[in-house]
Parts: sequence; C-alpha cells; structure tokens
Amino acid sequence: MRKLNEECGVFGIYANTPVDAAHEVYLGLYALQHRGQESVGISVCDDGVMRHRKGAGLVHEVFDEDELQKLGTGNIAIGHVRYSTTGGADMNNIQPLVVRHIKGNMSLAHNGNLTNSAQLRRKFELNGAIFHGTSDTEAIAYAIVAARLKCGSTEEAVEAAMNEIKGAYSCVLMTATKLIAFRDPNGFRPLVLGKTENGYIAASESCAIESIGGTVLRDVRPGEIAVIGEDGINSITTHCGRPQTMCVFEYIYFARPDSLLEGEPVQNWRTNAGRMLAKHSPADADIVIGVPDSGIDAALGYSAESGIPYATGFVKNRYIGRSFIQPKQSDRRDAVRIKLNAVSSVVSGKRVIMVDDSIVRGTTSARIVGLLKSAGAKEVHVRISSPPFRFPCWFGTDIDSQENLIACRYDNTEDIARAIGADSLAYLPVRDAQSLTKCGTCTGCFTGDYPIDVSGCGEKNKFEEKIHK
Amino acid sequence: MRKLNEECGVFGIYANTPVDAAHEVYLGLYALQHRGQESVGISVCDDGVMRHRKGAGLVHEVFDEDELQKLGTGNIAIGHVRYSTTGGADMNNIQPLVVRHIKGNMSLAHNGNLTNSAQLRRKFELNGAIFHGTSDTEAIAYAIVAARLKCGSTEEAVEAAMNEIKGAYSCVLMTATKLIAFRDPNGFRPLVLGKTENGYIAASESCAIESIGGTVLRDVRPGEIAVIGEDGINSITTHCGRPQTMCVFEYIYFARPDSLLEGEPVQNWRTNAGRMLAKHSPADADIVIGVPDSGIDAALGYSAESGIPYATGFVKNRYIGRSFIQPKQSDRRDAVRIKLNAVSSVVSGKRVIMVDDSIVRGTTSARIVGLLKSAGAKEVHVRISSPPFRFPCWFGTDIDSQENLIACRYDNTEDIARAIGADSLAYLPVRDAQSLTKCGTCTGCFTGDYPIDVSGCGEKNKFEEKIHK
Amino acid sequence: MRKLNEECGVFGIYANTPVDAAHEVYLGLYALQHRGQESVGISVCDDGVMRHRKGAGLVHEVFDEDELQKLGTGNIAIGHVRYSTTGGADMNNIQPLVVRHIKGNMSLAHNGNLTNSAQLRRKFELNGAIFHGTSDTEAIAYAIVAARLKCGSTEEAVEAAMNEIKGAYSCVLMTATKLIAFRDPNGFRPLVLGKTENGYIAASESCAIESIGGTVLRDVRPGEIAVIGEDGINSITTHCGRPQTMCVFEYIYFARPDSLLEGEPVQNWRTNAGRMLAKHSPADADIVIGVPDSGIDAALGYSAESGIPYATGFVKNRYIGRSFIQPKQSDRRDAVRIKLNAVSSVVSGKRVIMVDDSIVRGTTSARIVGLLKSAGAKEVHVRISSPPFRFPCWFGTDIDSQENLIACRYDNTEDIARAIGADSLAYLPVRDAQSLTKCGTCTGCFTGDYPIDVSGCGEKNKFEEKIHK
Amino acid sequence: MRKLNEECGVFGIYANTPVDAAHEVYLGLYALQHRGQESVGISVCDDGVMRHRKGAGLVHEVFDEDELQKLGTGNIAIGHVRYSTTGGADMNNIQPLVVRHIKGNMSLAHNGNLTNSAQLRRKFELNGAIFHGTSDTEAIAYAIVAARLKCGSTEEAVEAAMNEIKGAYSCVLMTATKLIAFRDPNGFRPLVLGKTENGYIAASESCAIESIGGTVLRDVRPGEIAVIGEDGINSITTHCGRPQTMCVFEYIYFARPDSLLEGEPVQNWRTNAGRMLAKHSPADADIVIGVPDSGIDAALGYSAESGIPYATGFVKNRYIGRSFIQPKQSDRRDAVRIKLNAVSSVVSGKRVIMVDDSIVRGTTSARIVGLLKSAGAKEVHVRISSPPFRFPCWFGTDIDSQENLIACRYDNTEDIARAIGADSLAYLPVRDAQSLTKCGTCTGCFTGDYPIDVSGCGEKNKFEEKIHK
Repeated sequence: MRKLNEECGVFGIYANTPVDAAHEVYLGLYALQHRGQESVGISVCDDGVMRHRKGAGLVHEVFDEDELQKLGTGNIAIGHVRYSTTGGADMNNIQPLVVRHIKGNMSLAHNGNLTNSAQLRRKFELNGAIFHGTSDTEAIAYAIVAARLKCGSTEEAVEAAMNEIKGAYSCVLMTATKLIAFRDPNGFRPLVLGKTENGYIAASESCAIESIGGTVLRDVRPGEIAVIGEDGINSITTHCGRPQTMCVFEYIYFARPDSLLEGEPVQNWRTNAGRMLAKHSPADADIVIGVPDSGIDAALGYSAESGIPYATGFVKNRYIGRSFIQPKQSDRRDAVRIKLNAVSSVVSGKRVIMVDDSIVRGTTSARIVGLLKSAGAKEVHVRISSPPFRFPCWFGTDIDSQENLIACRYDNTEDIARAIGADSLAYLPVRDAQSLTKCGTCTGCFTGDYPIDVSGCGEKNKFEEKIHK
Repeated sequence: MRKLNEECGVFGIYANTPVDAAHEVYLGLYALQHRGQESVGISVCDDGVMRHRKGAGLVHEVFDEDELQKLGTGNIAIGHVRYSTTGGADMNNIQPLVVRHIKGNMSLAHNGNLTNSAQLRRKFELNGAIFHGTSDTEAIAYAIVAARLKCGSTEEAVEAAMNEIKGAYSCVLMTATKLIAFRDPNGFRPLVLGKTENGYIAASESCAIESIGGTVLRDVRPGEIAVIGEDGINSITTHCGRPQTMCVFEYIYFARPDSLLEGEPVQNWRTNAGRMLAKHSPADADIVIGVPDSGIDAALGYSAESGIPYATGFVKNRYIGRSFIQPKQSDRRDAVRIKLNAVSSVVSGKRVIMVDDSIVRGTTSARIVGLLKSAGAKEVHVRISSPPFRFPCWFGTDIDSQENLIACRYDNTEDIARAIGADSLAYLPVRDAQSLTKCGTCTGCFTGDYPIDVSGCGEKNKFEEKIHK
Repeated sequence: MRKLNEECGVFGIYANTPVDAAHEVYLGLYALQHRGQESVGISVCDDGVMRHRKGAGLVHEVFDEDELQKLGTGNIAIGHVRYSTTGGADMNNIQPLVVRHIKGNMSLAHNGNLTNSAQLRRKFELNGAIFHGTSDTEAIAYAIVAARLKCGSTEEAVEAAMNEIKGAYSCVLMTATKLIAFRDPNGFRPLVLGKTENGYIAASESCAIESIGGTVLRDVRPGEIAVIGEDGINSITTHCGRPQTMCVFEYIYFARPDSLLEGEPVQNWRTNAGRMLAKHSPADADIVIGVPDSGIDAALGYSAESGIPYATGFVKNRYIGRSFIQPKQSDRRDAVRIKLNAVSSVVSGKRVIMVDDSIVRGTTSARIVGLLKSAGAKEVHVRISSPPFRFPCWFGTDIDSQENLIACRYDNTEDIARAIGADSLAYLPVRDAQSLTKCGTCTGCFTGDYPIDVSGCGEKNKFEEKIHK
Repeated sequence: MRKLNEECGVFGIYANTPVDAAHEVYLGLYALQHRGQESVGISVCDDGVMRHRKGAGLVHEVFDEDELQKLGTGNIAIGHVRYSTTGGADMNNIQPLVVRHIKGNMSLAHNGNLTNSAQLRRKFELNGAIFHGTSDTEAIAYAIVAARLKCGSTEEAVEAAMNEIKGAYSCVLMTATKLIAFRDPNGFRPLVLGKTENGYIAASESCAIESIGGTVLRDVRPGEIAVIGEDGINSITTHCGRPQTMCVFEYIYFARPDSLLEGEPVQNWRTNAGRMLAKHSPADADIVIGVPDSGIDAALGYSAESGIPYATGFVKNRYIGRSFIQPKQSDRRDAVRIKLNAVSSVVSGKRVIMVDDSIVRGTTSARIVGLLKSAGAKEVHVRISSPPFRFPCWFGTDIDSQENLIACRYDNTEDIARAIGADSLAYLPVRDAQSLTKCGTCTGCFTGDYPIDVSGCGEKNKFEEKIHK
C-alpha cells in the first residue's frame, strides 16, 4: 500500500546535567517513527566528545541495550529518523551527521529538502570540499562551517549560513555546549520546542515531546534560530518575517494525529476535512467507513457532518514487518488482502462511503474498492481528504513521478472513479485544504505554484550518475 | 499493556496437486498472528516425507524466503502460532509436532488445553512412553498412536483417542495422505473449514481463510472429525451432540473482528456489547472513546446507542517491537505513554466515556485513565465490554493468578473504579455476554462454573518441578 | 577440502555443589569442536529440573552469554557437538536429548552409530512409541526407559538396555542425581573419565578434560557403565570382557593430537605412522612437507626417520568461516588455493615428499599436488598415513559412497598416483596401522572385515523415504 | 593472547572489461585478513558510479552473497581490512573512503600512519574542511583533492599531495577510470603489483595476488605512483630515491609466511631468524618447539641449525571466534589453556627450547611457559625471533604503551626470564634482524631511532578529547 514518504524526523535534547540522553532521544525518535522507517541515528555529546551510532531499520531494530550503552551518558543528544529514497544501504547518508571542523565537533540532523543543493555543493567543492554522501545535510554543514571561520559563535554561523541555503529545512544542531534548532523562513516542515524537568527538547512534532513526559512550549518560528544552552532558550530572529508556507500534507497525512502543528491539532484538521467533504461532496449511502489508519478521522468527520452512521469497514493486520514475504503466484490484489480485510458483516448489501486521505497511483485504491465490492458492498463512493496530486514536491516529500500519478493520467475525476472501480469519487478542493489552517500552507504538489524559486532543483544528482569515459 | 493470552492458532491446507503449501500456511498464520506471537512452526508433507521448521518469534521473523524454500513443495501442510506461558526457549514445545510411529509419519497442531493431560501422560509413561516437551500435544499424539495400533485408519484412531482426551482441543492433523481437523465435543475453541481453487483449508478463524483468497465453508462441528483427502471432506460425527460451550472471550477479545465464529460476525458481537453497556450502564458525558485496538468497536456501539458522539481519543504508536527498550528511571506510567497518547484537543475539558474490552490487574487501566485526566478530561467513565475476571480458565486462556486480578482484590465495582481513578465504572453483565450469541458459551472465568469436570487440572506439571533428592 | 566426518563429541560434568555447569560444558565442547561443527546442545540439571538449549552452528555461535545464563546453574550438565550428514536443519536431531518418562527426567548424548537401530525403532513403535527425530539416540533412550520400568535404578536400566542395543555407542546420560557414562563392549569410540576439584568429568577425549583444568583419570572400559554420583564413581562391568576394536581412524585423523586414546598419545601414533611410511615407502627427495593441519605430525615423523629435512610447504588461511563465498566462475582449483597456498620459496625446484593423512575422492589431493607443481616443485611424492578407504563404516564415520572413493575406482596405487598427478604414492599398510596401538582396532573401512554383525544396518531410514500412496 | 596489531591491508583490482570485481576484492581481502580483523569495506566503480559497503567484522562475516550482489559489477574495485584501535563502532573510520569532489568521485584505502596528520587536518580545517572520522585517510583525501583543483589529472594531484603528507602510507586509490597505487618514499608498508588475465592488481602482500590466481609482478617502489588504466601500468617516480626503511615487523610477524616482501620470502626470513638465534643463543635441550602459529618457522630454523629435534609441543584450538565466552571464576591461565594445550607426551621430562616471535607484556608468555611446566617440561628455554620492544611505533603498528612493555619494566633479560618463569631467555639482536633483509628496515620500536621526523605525532587526537567548557 504505497504512500507518500516524508523524508525525516528530528529530535534533540539538552539537559543541565548529564543524563541518559541517548535513551531519551531513542524514545523521542520512537514517537517520530511515522516520519521515517528506513534508517535511524543518534549522536551524544559528552563534554565535547561526540559519539554516534546509526543503522538501517526501525528505532528498536537498530538500537538495542548494548548499542544505547555504547553511546553513553551526556547532556546533549540529537537523533534522526529517515525515509531513504535511494535505498537504506548507503550508511553515509544516514543522519545525524557528525563532523570535526576547525572550531570543534558538531552534529546535525535535517528534515526537508534544499532547492539550491547542487549549487552549494559545487561552490564548496570548488574550494576543495569533499562530500561523503549525497544528502543535503552535508551542504548545510559546509555552509555553517564556512561561516564559522568568520563568526564568533556557531549560532552566528547558522545565521550567516541561512543566507546561503534555500528551500525547506528544519534542523537540530549540536555543538560541544549547545543545542540549536533552526527552521527555514517559510517554515515548510514543523519544528517544536518543549521543556523537561531539567532542560529542553526540540522535535519535529509535539507528540515526541509528550511521549517522554515533556511539556510543549511552542513552535520554532519560521526563520528562527533557537539556541538552547546553560541560560535557557535564546532566539535569533533576523530571518523571521516571511509569510509561512507550511506543507499542507503534514496536516493531511504526515504528522501524527495527536500532534499540534503551529498550535493546531492535526486530528481536528482531519476531522474537519471530512466534514468539508461531506458538505461539498455528499453521497446517498448507508454507512461511512475509513481506510485505516489515516482515513479514519476524516471518515468520522464525514459521518458526523452527514449523519450517515460510521462503521469499522476494514480490519488491518497489525503484525506487519519489512521481511514479510508477499504472495507470489497470485494477483496483486492478494497482497492488499493480506494486510487489509473488508468486514463482510458490515459492508455486505450496503451503499458505502469510503474515506481515504489520498490517491497516488490509484492501484491500491482500486484494490481496496475491489475488496469492498467482493465483500458485498452495493455501491462504493470514494471521498479523498486531499486534493489530487499533479506536481512534484521540492521540499522533502517523495511524490511519485508524474507519469505514475493517476490524477495526471486522467482528464477528470469521473475517469479516475471509473479507473478505481468507484461509483463516485470526490477530492477535497485546494481552497478547502488551505482554509482549514490559520497558518499559510504550501500546496505546490496540487497546484504547481511553489512559494519559492525551484529552478535549481533539477541539477542535484550529478555525482550519482554514470560518468562515461 | 498486559492482556489475556490465547495459546494458539492452527492452520492446515490440503491441495489435490503439489503447491507452495508452506507459503500458503505462512500467509494463513500471518492472519492468525493475533492468536499467538511467541513462536511459530510449519510442517509440509511431500508424498509422505515431512519437513518442518519452527522458531521463536513472529511469523515473518522466523520464516524468511530461505526457510520457506527449505520446506519445499508439498500438497499438505499445517502450521501453528503460539503464545507460550513458559517462555519461548523450549523449542520442543513449539508446534506443529512431527513424529514417526509404526504406521508412518504424522504432524499435529493443537489449540486449547486438556483437563486430563497429567493422567494421560502418566498412563502412557507407564507403558514406556517418552515425552520431549511439556505441552498437551504430545499426549494427544500418543493417544492417537496408541489407538492407531488397533485401528484401520488414522481417522478411526482419532475417533478412539477422543474417548480418552478431555478438555478443549481444536486440532489439525496431517498424515501422508490426509488432513484431519477435529474439535472437542464442547467446541471450546473455534475451527473453520474453507475451500480453495484446488483443495481445502482448516483454520482457527475464518479471517485466515479469506486472507489467502479461500471461501469459508462452515465451522467444524463440536465433536466432529473432518477428514480431508482425495475425495473431499468426509465427517465422523460420533462425538457430536453435546451442547456447545464456546469460549466467550473469543468474541470479547481473542478473535479478529472480521472473523465469523459459529457463523456470527465477531465485530457485531462487540458493537452490540457496547450497545448493551449503553443501555444498562449509561453515563452523562460529552464524548465516547475506545481504547485501541480492541475497545474501538464497543465504543462505537456505545456511541450509537447512547447518541453521545464518538471520537478518537487515543493515538497508538504503530511501530511496536519486542525489542523496544522501556524507559528506566521513570515511573511506569511513561511506559504506557510511549505506546498510547491521549489526544488533548479531543478530551480536554470533556466528560469522557472510555470503553475497553477488559480489566485484568487494573494497573494499565489506571494508567490509561491517568493519561486522559492529565490531557484535561474533566470526568472519565469507564465501561468494560466484558464481565469481571474472577476465576482461572482451564481451556487455553492464560488468565492471571487470582491474587493479581483486580476483581478478586476488591469487593465491589465502586472500589475498583476508585482504584483505577475512574469517575464511574461498569462491566457487561454475564447474562448479557451470553445473550449476544446464538451458540452456547463457556463463561467459567467470570463465574467459576465450568461446563466440564476440571478436577484433574492441578496435577499437570509434575516433571517441571524440582525433584528433591 | 572434503574430509571424513566423525558424528559427535560428548561431554558431561558432575559437581558435588551447584556450579556454573553450563559454562564448564561450553568450554569442554569447545575443546571437542573438531569432532562436530554442525550443531551443539547443552542440558543442565538443577535439582531435577532439566533445562536445555541447542542450535545449529559452532559452540561459540550457538551459545552467547545470554543463552548460557538461561541454562542457569546446576550440579550436573551434559553437552554434545555433532556433524550432521542430513543437514543442520532438523532441530529434533540435535543432542543432547532431554526427555520426561515415568521415573523422571533424563538427558542423553551419544557418539557412535547403532547397527540395529531400525529393528529397535520398529520394536518400540509396535508398542506405541513415537519418534521425534531420526537419530539413534531416541532408540537408546527408549531402550533405557523400557528397562527402567522393571529396574530399580537408571544404571540397572542401562545395563539391561545394553543387551538390546548393538553397535558403537559412547554415551553420557544425566538423571536428576547422577551422571552415567557408558560405552559399547567393543569400545569403538573413545570415552574418558576425569576429575575436577569438586567432581568428575566424562568426555570423548582427554583434551577436553585438560582444557577446563581437570585431571585425566582413565578411559571408560569397553562395556563399562560408570555411575558418577554423591559417592564418586561406581562401575558396572557385566558387559566388559570383549576384545576392544577401537576405530583406528580416531588415531589417524579424528582425535586431537594432544589427546590420549586408551592411554596412548595420538600425536605419537601419527609421528610413528610417518616413521613407518618412511621405512616402508622411502622416496628420493629434497624436503618433506605436511598438508595442514592433520598431515604435519606424520610429515615430521617421516622427516625424522628418513633424514630428509622437514619444511613448511603450505600456508593455510586461518580465517575460515562457514559463510565464506567461494569463487564462482573459476575452476575448482581456486577454491583450494583460497584456503591453502604452496610456499614457492620452499618448494620451487625441489623434489618434495608430501604427507597427508588420507585420500577420499582424490580431487582435493589432485589440487594440492597441482598447487605444489605450479609453485615449482620438480617432483611430488605423496605419502598417506592411512590405508586406502574401500568400505563403508557402520560405526559413526561418514565415509563417502564407494563409487566416489578413489581407491575403489582404480585398481592399483600407480593409477591413483597418476590420477592425482603425483610422481609416486604410498599408503600406510593396514597391518602397520594396527601395529601402532596396543589396543585392538577396527579397520573395517579399509578391509571390509567388521568386528560385529552389520547385516541390519541397511534398513535404517524407512521413515525418511517417500511413502507413495 | 595479545599480539601486536597491524592497522590495515589494502587490495585493488583493475580489469579491462566489467567483471565481478567485488568478489575478486572479497577473495583478495580474505587472503589479507591477518592484517586486520576488526572491519572491512569494498568499493566498486561501475562507469564512474561508486558503490560501497562496509562493516565491523571479518570479511566473510560482513559480506554475504546479498551484500556482494548489491555492490554489482564494475571494472575497478578496491577494498580494505582494518584493525581498529578505537573500537569497531565508528563506521565513519572504516575504509575505503568514498568521496565526491569537484572533479568526480574517488575511493581511497590506506595502510600506515601519517606523522603530520594533525597539522594537515588543521590546515584543511582552516580552509573550511569537515572531517567525518578520525583516520588519516581523510587527510590524504583532502590533500589530493586540494591538489586536484590545480592539477590536470588525479595522478598529478597525488604527486603534488605527496609533498604534503609525511609518514607511512601504502594506498590504493580508485577514480572513475583508473586504479592508482602509491607508497611513501620510505616504503614502510608493503605494496605489490600483480597481473590477472585481463587486468592488474595492487595489494598489500603477494599472497593476495596468488590467492585469486594472479601473477606477482613486482613491489611498488618506495615513493612510486603506479597508475593503472586502459594502457597498463604507468609510473610516476619523482618521489623515489630515498633509502627504503621497510617495517622489520612485517618480516617478523605481520606478513603471511608465503608472501614475498621486496622480493624476499617471509618464511625464509623467519627460518633464518631461528637459525641466527640458534647460533648466537644456543641452549642445552632435548627438543625445540614453536608457539603456534607465528613461532613455528623460527623453531624449525632453530632446530635445523642446532640439530636438536623439532616437535609439535602445542595444539591450538582451531575454532576460535570473537564471541567466545572466556572462563570467569578461574585464573587467567585457563583462558590460554582453552586456546592452547601443551602436549604432555612430547614435553614431559624434557628440556624444551620454546621459540616465539615476540614478547609484549609478558603475561601470555608466562602462561605458555606455565603450560609447558605443568605438562612436565623439566626446563624451558625461551628464544624470541625479534629484539625486545621498548619504543612506540609511529608508522602503523599498535604497540602497547611503554609502562606495559615487559622490556621497559625490567632492566635485563635475566629478570624478564625470571618474570615469565623461563630457565633462560634470548632475543634476536637488532643487527641480526636487520642483516636478514637486503632492503633497509625501520627498527624504531626496538631502538627508538626513527628514519623520519616524528615530532608532530603527539598532537593527533585533539577532537577526540573532551572539550571542557
């Protein structure tokens, strides 16, 4: 069941006294696991000595007691979970990055995507720079280190570097004595500050702060550099002021429903999206069901608004693992059926409204509609709590190529409905998606209108391509 | 979050031509994984040669492509998932059992618990029998093999053995040429027959038959021996006729909601239990929420019956793994918080009805109520879709010892409510639980009234205790 | 480099007070690892409760700290290493066997091979017995348990069982209170007794006793039952008296050179075999070299007797592991070259006498001779410190099938020499091999004359073959 | 049994057509495994795209079929085995290094140790450089990349960089189209060229070339840059001419006995060292034995020269693994006994000359002498085929700190003999060690006289130390 992929979650902790910082980051990353399942890394600062460990897999697969103990105690630590589009194999791309430069050690974890990464890399390479991986994170690190040569402090170096790096970045940066959280001026990706008994947290989402018993303070402002040290949080706000364009897909799918984004509950957004769908795209039906897990809240909203009863129409197998061996000889429908079963007793003989959060290629949607029909559903009306995908994202979401997107392959919604076997289909309009948040949003993947210049994005992967002699 | 444990799920397949039987069983066991997560085994019959492999862990952890290939093709295969109360270490107890006896090879997988296991073992041991493990399964195998010496066929041997073995047993048995599914005369544990394109299935639950694309035929009748071979299904029904006493906890918690038990949808049972609770134990509240995953359906029923809106009050971390490292220094509440977070935006300032399927020790319930209160819930009214546990189960459910059961430790419901921090508490009455199924049920764990004699159950573990010199 | 395979090594320890018995067995088995590398198991008796763990692989691969700790403390423990001819997969065949019978628990480990295994299994099966594996060990256990029903003690049951079981068996048996070591009346396989500070050891070889700091006492006598308990070692000798026929290949290859077999140093045997070869099969040459590791001692003997200087002609790669990936595209010679390299500076331009312990198929010998020639050796004279293999072994050595044995495929030694590319070839004559020990030996694999009846050996594997419907 | 540790082995292959280059490197590294057992890496160049994989462990542990396949085919590949003094954990230090710079990709593997690493790092850091690890290899890479900005080719950049980097380095460097092997002007560490059917090899030792069926061509000259490409091998020799100072410990212990170093057979060196010892330090004894494996050849030389018979005095357990669990309660002698057993039948009652290659702390030597004494040796005369260690090595050998070196702790050889329990002790004099090779050697670890300036070596680990606030 192919979904869109967010590239990262970041988590950092600062304590006034040495604590089991690695374990705190471990727990925090566990709460952010939905933002990346391919690899994970943690780095710990113990009076300036930085230890780090990383690997491909889930948080609890990569880190066992033994690995955590090797990280040791420390008073600052950061971590990162990542979805890798290029395969989990290249260990060099796994974050956090830990580097040694002229002023000491630093460790950096990054969520987002730069739009001028290729240009930055070229610039630094012309000065003799060496890159170990292909991620944007090294480019950010070079920009900071280059500025650090001229600046009195790391935070000033970050401030200077932010003049150079363009695009989406929500970062946590660890030095020997500080934890620095900074966010691009558009605030594409979330970044939240929290408080613990004896220190502070910076995390991609508020749920991670709550999971380790911390209190949510506030979002890092778009463009803000929050410097956490002995004297608490100090902010540099010279890059603040641009209107925010938070990725709307954070609300639609990426963020955990119990998180607050820019102060607004994600679950509310989803329930309200369902309500809007019910208002603008009603259907004559007997029950409303949601596709687990991310379609459930919108389905409840649709049901509440429309008065059509909600029911549990699908049971999902909870024991999924990467190593699961798919059925071979059979058709692909079976692969969906293994993970998702339609409840015949609920849907048989009924006209069903099926709510989901998005359609990418349409193949999975077709199979899910098929499950309902073969379980006896009389009609299946599909309602999607997001607009149709038609354009690439340059800010950190891995959207399929346009030739695969069903909304690019068909002229109108009726044709898509037919392609997935639905009796009717409706999407959430872009203006509705935007109206549901107080903060400004980026809806570029739906409209092709991007809030910042993306003309340099295509150049990126020069060194990953074959160099013909 | 300690729950009750079912001991097993069984799955068997018979095909008229050699197929990738091991992979079919693998998929079927995956659908039955909720019935046992400690160990798994598969045995395959290839023209009389039986290969088997087993291990501790989840289906997809124990079996990789390599392991499945070693099992090879065959036209009959059976498998088993197990929750082990004695630790996953003792490989000898992992089923299916594969044995060689005078008439050939056979493989046996068993769900349930015998009530005369100690007596049977002693009888066979007096004749020179050797036991490799401590499970009941070997006792059943000996009973069949002993009868086989005098009977013309394995099915007749099973028929004769059923005169000896007492208690709960839903079994699949594989010989060189047949798959035999048999069930105790009380029908304590489920066992269902299905049809594939070129053969048959016997499985603990209907969801497993559907998951591999089979069609559900019917439940194996209590006392029935269903013999599946070249000429289809043939039944021996000499042990049928006793009134059924299906374990009511299969409906409450064990079975997957999309399964049918004795033809009745499990999810209906749970929704109806929620409706009954609403009728008999109303509460003045703003929202109804369910504890994921097993309290959701009853909560939806409660909401539908009461008219109080349903909402998603908890978010559960979906990335749980056995190897997760718990928080250490902190109080135990944190361990629950890591896996379950209360959605503040939903519950804050609200009077909440929280529906769950059962309370065992009460400690987890207390923590969950605590999560709601600290997320701002004004009142928490707990409604439980089962009666209180007060007695041991002798038929295959691992209920905690009586000194740990909260319902044994307190005199009345008000005291339990207080102990878990709830503003009110109500259970589903036993008569309601019984009234929700057409088939007869065993409610011994609630009432202490068992449908069959359990006087021999205490003797069981003689050889597991220390023998003092 | 295919070699002959011994099937097992056994080790047992008895202490007067609870010790870390599992770890002692672990160390003992590590010293016996050369006797079996496919699987390993340990069982511990803790006041009558028997815990056991086992797995496929080397001792240090299967048992980590965690696994050893799970075995816990106890005052008796036994263990087993095994070379499995049927693949390491079938966990049921891994020893020690631990079983529960009417008089309690017992655990059994066995080195050797029965000649009437099929007959015994049939007899017990006719009485209702169930076999979990295909090894002889279960048959021995049944024989003991059957006798135990009529005897007052386990040792008497062993004595009675020894009337039934035929062939080669060197066993350690653990009951709740005793460690019993017993050996077949021919004494085919070694079994040695040792003393520790606070107890006793029984092991396949004396090197295992020394490796844990024990003192070697004496060999268990052929036919002896040595009962080790609170009051030390007590012997039952009713089965003693038959002339011993120790497997000569224990001296030639199986046993570790630092072990004593029947009181005679194995290394002496090998050096003397080299001396005999030099006397009876001289060659005009410049240097003598040995094929590592097992041809070195005989080469040193040859050199000492002949006066031709010894040199290190081969370097063996010490980092061999099961998972090593062989060269693919290249010819098979490369596979040998990876593990063994001829030292050009030593052999170039020389007439070389190459001493090895045996030739099985001849393919490896041909490649090794080839290595020498391509490293510049002018002549290669092969001297083998054993007679040629021509017959199967029924007592626990896995000799290749006769159509593969080079000595069966060629009429005379000259032809074999030509086949392996040697300038001359000589074997140790059978009478010389026999003359090197004071104890009687079995040389059946060279002569076809077996010391006991082997007519029943062919029937063995009935239940492993396909049963056609 | 603590030994000195070499830090690395390198291997590179160039083929005119795409081959399974990764597997060839795998086999080559396997032959070099004795030079480093802590970690291993391989990088492959496939038309300019570089894939690499690495991990902690032995070659066959880190690379399975699956891992090798992920590396894919290519026509150039390099690999590295490493002994890590700082723990295998820091994946960033595992070589080969693969980096992207302005002119493309390159991969580098290095054996040796720079003497101006700290100074180089500081210089590059002042220009904004970032270091991912603490190894010298990144400094070499930066020096090459910095030069590459000004030079027309990578080989010219290497030539320029060699003006900057000081110390010991034997490197293989892979670009999109070439394999470059270069060696410091002193030739501290070996580096050899070989020829395959369709290309070339550069490897730390000749044994690795032979192991994959290649032909040894010659050593890379001290200071030479050998550029291997489409038109064969081209050399840049501008840095050649300085007198060679090959590490004498390569002859004594590091190199495999079947390797040629600067054209001289290593095994000859060792045998001759034994002969010299016999000449200069005779002893009145009955037998000569060697400590396996590295003392054997010198023992054979001692025996040949002295006429005292050689015998196999020790048996070493061949099944050693990293995960082996040491004996706990017992004294440390047992740990040696587990791996090494003295053969009583050989040494009992004898005056024994025991030859070993070196003594570091003396504790292991003391235990080995103890093994001989407790096996009955009347006298033990220890002869060491190297001079005593008294000084640190700055060129890649991990010698223990001076306070641990037994030769620093005692004034004279008699005291050391007494400390290890030997009846007499003699070392190979430094002048003898030097006289055994035609090429010049570095004997700094014995004399404290180093062939180049080592004054900058102490500064190295600035960023690994704690930075106090």
